[in-house]
Parts: sequence; C-alpha cells; structure tokens
Amino acid sequence: MASPPARGSQVGRKIPGKSSLSGACASKLGVLGNPCGERAKPQPQAAAPGGRGASGQPEAVVATPTGRRRAPPRRRPASPLAPPRRGRSRRFRLPFKSSCALHAPASCVNPPAPSVRLAAPLPACGVISLMEPGSKMMSQFRLALIQLRVSSVKADNLTRAGEFIKKAASQGAKIISLPECFNSPYGANFFPEYAEPIPGECTRRLSDLAKECQVYLIGGSIPEEDDGKFYNTCTVFGPDGALLAKHRKLHLFDIDIPGRIRFQESETLSAGDSLSIFETPYCKVGVGICYDIRFAELAQIYSQRGCQLLVYPGAFNLTTGPAHWELLQRGRAVDNQVFVATASPARDVDSSYVAWGHSTVVSPWGEILAQADTDESIVYANIDLKKLFEVRQQIPVLSQKRADLYAVEWKKV
Amino acid sequence: MASPPARGSQVGRKIPGKSSLSGACASKLGVLGNPCGERAKPQPQAAAPGGRGASGQPEAVVATPTGRRRAPPRRRPASPLAPPRRGRSRRFRLPFKSSCALHAPASCVNPPAPSVRLAAPLPACGVISLMEPGSKMMSQFRLALIQLRVSSVKADNLTRAGEFIKKAASQGAKIISLPECFNSPYGANFFPEYAEPIPGECTRRLSDLAKECQVYLIGGSIPEEDDGKFYNTCTVFGPDGALLAKHRKLHLFDIDIPGRIRFQESETLSAGDSLSIFETPYCKVGVGICYDIRFAELAQIYSQRGCQLLVYPGAFNLTTGPAHWELLQRGRAVDNQVFVATASPARDVDSSYVAWGHSTVVSPWGEILAQADTDESIVYANIDLKKLFEVRQQIPVLSQKRADLYAVEWKKV
Repeated sequence: MASPPARGSQVGRKIPGKSSLSGACASKLGVLGNPCGERAKPQPQAAAPGGRGASGQPEAVVATPTGRRRAPPRRRPASPLAPPRRGRSRRFRLPFKSSCALHAPASCVNPPAPSVRLAAPLPACGVISLMEPGSKMMSQFRLALIQLRVSSVKADNLTRAGEFIKKAASQGAKIISLPECFNSPYGANFFPEYAEPIPGECTRRLSDLAKECQVYLIGGSIPEEDDGKFYNTCTVFGPDGALLAKHRKLHLFDIDIPGRIRFQESETLSAGDSLSIFETPYCKVGVGICYDIRFAELAQIYSQRGCQLLVYPGAFNLTTGPAHWELLQRGRAVDNQVFVATASPARDVDSSYVAWGHSTVVSPWGEILAQADTDESIVYANIDLKKLFEVRQQIPVLSQKRADLYAVEWKKV
Repeated sequence: MASPPARGSQVGRKIPGKSSLSGACASKLGVLGNPCGERAKPQPQAAAPGGRGASGQPEAVVATPTGRRRAPPRRRPASPLAPPRRGRSRRFRLPFKSSCALHAPASCVNPPAPSVRLAAPLPACGVISLMEPGSKMMSQFRLALIQLRVSSVKADNLTRAGEFIKKAASQGAKIISLPECFNSPYGANFFPEYAEPIPGECTRRLSDLAKECQVYLIGGSIPEEDDGKFYNTCTVFGPDGALLAKHRKLHLFDIDIPGRIRFQESETLSAGDSLSIFETPYCKVGVGICYDIRFAELAQIYSQRGCQLLVYPGAFNLTTGPAHWELLQRGRAVDNQVFVATASPARDVDSSYVAWGHSTVVSPWGEILAQADTDESIVYANIDLKKLFEVRQQIPVLSQKRADLYAVEWKKV
C-alpha cells in the first residue's frame, strides 16, 4: 500500500523536480515530430524547449514549436527545489488525515482497470443515481487538479504535465485533471498552430501516462484538428490507457465586455455536440470545458444521468474569474448535489490571455474543499461520496423536482 | 413629483413611524373580523394587537389571533422614532443617487395602471425577451423589500406590513415585496390556524394597499385555505388593486438535517402547479416562494418567458441561510441574467422557526445591490434594466444556449 502523504503537504505548492525534458521523452517527441509539421525548424541542442542550464534554473525560452523566436518570458527566479512559500493556498486547507486508510480503502490504491466504457448504455434520462450505503462502488478517493503554468513551448508543456501527473499519482490521486488548453497558449490565433488530431502526439502521451500511473486522467483540453475543423477538446483516459471520453467544448467562448475583454472562440473553433460521461470505481464523472459551466443545463443533465462529480478544465480570466468562477462552481454543486472541480492554468501575467487560476474542488453542499491561488500547483481533495448521499437525503431536491411540471432534456439519442 | 430620499437613507434601517394600529385600521380589521373566526375572543382595548402605551413602546402582546394567551415575546426596546443605528446593512450600500431623476424618469413616479393581466397570453416557451434600447418600457424603477418582524398576532402583522408598504411607496418604490408567511408564524402547526381563503381579509387589504400606494405589491405569502387544502401562497396586486398573480409554492419545504433542522411542509400543505408571471411598465416579473429558489428549472423557465426580475419571498433558516441563501440568488441571477430579489422575515430568535433575514437584491452580473442584515428594515434597490441588457450583450449565454442539444420545458399548457 502506498505510504500516505504528510498532512496538507501538497496543497498549493510547487512540485519539486526537474522540468527539463528527459532524454527518453525528448527522443520520443522528436520521433513523433513537431506538431506543427512543415513549419517547424530544427532547433540547436542548447535551445531545446524548456531546457535548463547547469544551474538548474530555466533557460530562456527562445523558440516556439513553430520555430519562431520570441522574447523570453519573464519568470520568477524560483528553484523547483526551493521550499514552498506560505499562504499560497487561499482560505481553504485540504481536510487531509495523516492516515490514508481513513479516506481510501486499501483496494482503492490500485483499483482494477475499469470495464466500463463510454460505449456502455447510459441510464435513461431523468434517472437519478444515488450513492447508496453499501454500494459496491468505492466511496472514497483522492482527486488532483494540476494548475499548470502553460508556456508557448508545446513539448515543454507536455513534459511538465507528465511530471505533475506522476507526482499527483504518487500522492494517492486516483482521478487527475489537467487544465484547459494545457499544451498551448490560449488564443484563437494559437489554436490552428498547436492543434493536432486525436489520437495524436499529446493524447498518446496522456494515454501512456494514465496507464503508467494507473489513474483516470482528464486531459484538460487541447486544440484538436479534425477534417479541417478545430475544436477545444478534452480527452479522458483510464488506468489501462483506453480513451474513455472525448469532450468537444459545447459552448464556444464568445464574450465582449468593452474595455475589459473580448474573445471569440467561434472565429476559429467549431463546437461539439455530445455529452461526455465516464465511469470509475469511485463515481460517475461528467466533463465540460470552461464556458460550458455557464450553461446550467449541461450539469443538470449530467446529474440526471447519475454523475456525482463534474470536472471542468477551464481558464476564466481576470474579469470573469473574480465575478463568477467560484459562484458558478458552487451553484452547479448545490443545484445538482454533486462534487464539482475546475482545473485552470496557473496565472501568467505575461501571456496574451491571463488565466484566473484558483483551481477548485467544491462539495455537494457548496463548500470549497480545496482551492489553489494563482501559482503553479496541485490541488488535492479527498472525495467522500457519503457526503453526497447525506446531502441528498437532508435536502432532497433531486427527488423533489416537479417532473409533472417541467423537464430538462437532452435531445440527442 | 415625489421628492427623492436622501442618499442611502433607507438601506437596512428601521422605518420611523408608528407601528400601532390606526383607529381606521383597527376598526376595519374589527369589522372584517378575526381571521380565525369562531375561535377568536374579543380583546380588551388596552391589549389590542400591536398596541403601544403612552411611552410609544410596544405593549406586551398578550393574545394570539385565536385568543390563546402567550408570554410576551422579548423585543428590543427600540423606539420607532429613534435614529437608525449604523452598520446594519451588511457589506453593501444602495448605489443611490441624490437625484431621483437620475434613476427614474418623471413618468415613472406615477405610472399608469397597467393593462396587462395574467390572463394575457404568455410568449411561447423558449422565447427570450431582451430589453432593447429604446424600448417603450421604463427601464428604471425602485424596488423595495420589506423585512418584516412577524409576530404571532395576525392583525398586527397586517397592520405593520401596511405601514411599511406606505413608507416604501413614499420613498419612490414601484414594486414592493413582503416576506414569506408575513401574517403568520412559520410552522406546519400554524398554517391551518392562520389560513384564509383568497380573496380574504389579508389579500383584500393588500389589494387596497396596492391601489392606495399606486404600486405593484408582491404580498409575500400567507397560508391559504381552499377547498379543505392548505397552500403557501403569494398574491400580487397592481396599482389598480387587481390581482395579477397567485403563486402557490411549487416545491414544499421538506428537509431533515439531523441535529440541525427538520421541517416538513408537506405534512400540512399542498403544492401549487402554476407559473406566476406578471408584467409591469418596468419589467416582467416571475414569482417563486422560498424553497422554489432551489429548483433552477423554475428560474430558467421564467427567464425563457421574458422575466427580467425574479422575486422570491423566502424564509431560510440558520442552517440553510448561511450556506445557500446568497449563493442561490446569485446563481439564479447569473445563470439567467436577471435581477433576483428575496424578501425574508426579520430574525426573531424567540420564534419556533428562526428566519435568516438578509433580504437581498442581486444584479444580472451576480452583484449584491442591496442587502439587509437580520433586523426589521426595508431594503431598496434602484433597478436599471439597461444593466441587464448590457450583461446579456457582453456574455450572451441566453442566445448561446444549445437549443439543438437540450431544452428546459414547462409541461403544462
């Protein structure tokens, strides 16, 4: 059985360890080729994306995946091995016990590979799945959200995401989520440049990582290219490396707040048209991406179909983040009596789109169980499905809905 | 034109003025008779409900409407004419300008009696009514929520509600809401005792008040008796005294949080089965009662049908209030891009059911425009529909809903 991590040891802290490409990874990425194909140019060894000098400090990033040179972004001169700063997790501390056994049965540590796939029939719309006491499902598990600092170097993003995933798995996480657009800067002009097919370089690597770490891996999102169209797409892989879900963002982020922010995903992207649900030995999970969280109907339908955890990789900004990020998550959680998690990129004030950060886990009662601040970090939360069952018993809104008067319905078969 | 109130002068403050029964009111109530009919006993003049002695302080209330004597409730020895205490409105101040003309056109002060009635056909489900610039509707008005301290003396509650309504109207309020169960203590055992038919004593008085004050009056709720059944019912009256809507609570408050609170409205009450929408010269309004706010579908359907303001008279308690009162209102407001208002009874720690208070007005952006604390007070907010239009343009979630994929539908014709 894996030894339990120390109490609260990883909340909102940087992960010690190298962020340079390992030889094997670099070689593999090299073999797979630059995602931007013919536009790529060979890079000299010294300027390898994300490489570090002898000091262990990040070298200046001088090349994008497309070979264009950019001014090195300003980074805080923090060593990855430096002790974590205090006060970096805002307001809430992980309610973590020193004994893992209190939260996760031994069988939870290395669960069998799931036999459930998306192809399995979903329960009829309108059926509410409650987590009954004595259910054969494992009611406790550890969730991890990776608040990655996304750079313009695709290979570096992928490598560092892998290191965070391994770290989270070593701390007992069984479901892990990356943030939205984790392999690319977020911007309509970047999507075609960084897009790749699925399966492709990134998603093959995510599959390998899920299998290697024996976790359910929600792969944030990447720009996907398919048949000449682009999508903002989240892939989910099981502990056997199988693709369990592929969620194309249903609602494209088109907002215009004069003097604050204008963003039109629809100028570049196409929208998806499917629900994305997958099952684990712990709970059933529904996936949305960022702006999808504003549309209550999606969460309502996921809840109807038995989801107990909703995960939204997302990248709110400095206007919508303080106004609505926490509110929307807590609202979805309380309205549907589910756990809700959001995984954001870390804040990079030098990027063209500045993410809000604050990756969060919310309970079915609307409590914030864990929350990052703005820096790169892993957010852990120990999820206990008994809490969900208790809330649904105490305030039974799901069974009290007036099905004789109204309905929320998914139209597609 | 009514002279404008001073800046922020009435937020969360007690209303100066007498709370004793006027001779005319007392006489009228006497003529109308005790609502509990044959169980009532004549009361001596000195012990008239809500009466005050020569000092101007409240006399001990010694009689319930049913004639049973009770120990006088503890009340704070505050004179109604005493200057308001500071700091009683929590966190938010009314964004009130010193010139009423900035917020309400002159025509708004005495609007014509509306010609719209509930009998008018509603727009088709799914149609979203936006407040277009240049619309003939008046885009600005003043909303008032009366956070009444509800006693066990029905006649006193009604009289004091009337005084608050007149006060709010004198301050320019055009839409006024009373709290849930404003004429009766809140409790399953009280409902049959305080119930009355509609029309009945209370609702006739509300009609008169609406006409006298030339306001739209959302009459909180009262226990209603109809054909041997009891309902928790909100009536709405227009400036001509006409009944515009009668909302019977759709979702009965049945919760059981061990060690905290158990309440089962369904042991006594029956539920309604209708939407309740009314139109004003300012905006279209949807009404729910308390627990109805937990059901997102109702707000979604109101929004689909063009409501721009949702009003929920409600009485959350000391468990659900701090957890969810504000969250639910802000969630409904942001999800549906509407104004949301809640009117609670004032907190009375001596009552069998202790209300949370904190009557609130929320903007379509999710901001709290005005909020009471726990004491008896009137909450005012100047509503500007242009804000709603701006929010819907900036983050156009209502027009971005995926009608090809999902729907929220009202089943009844």
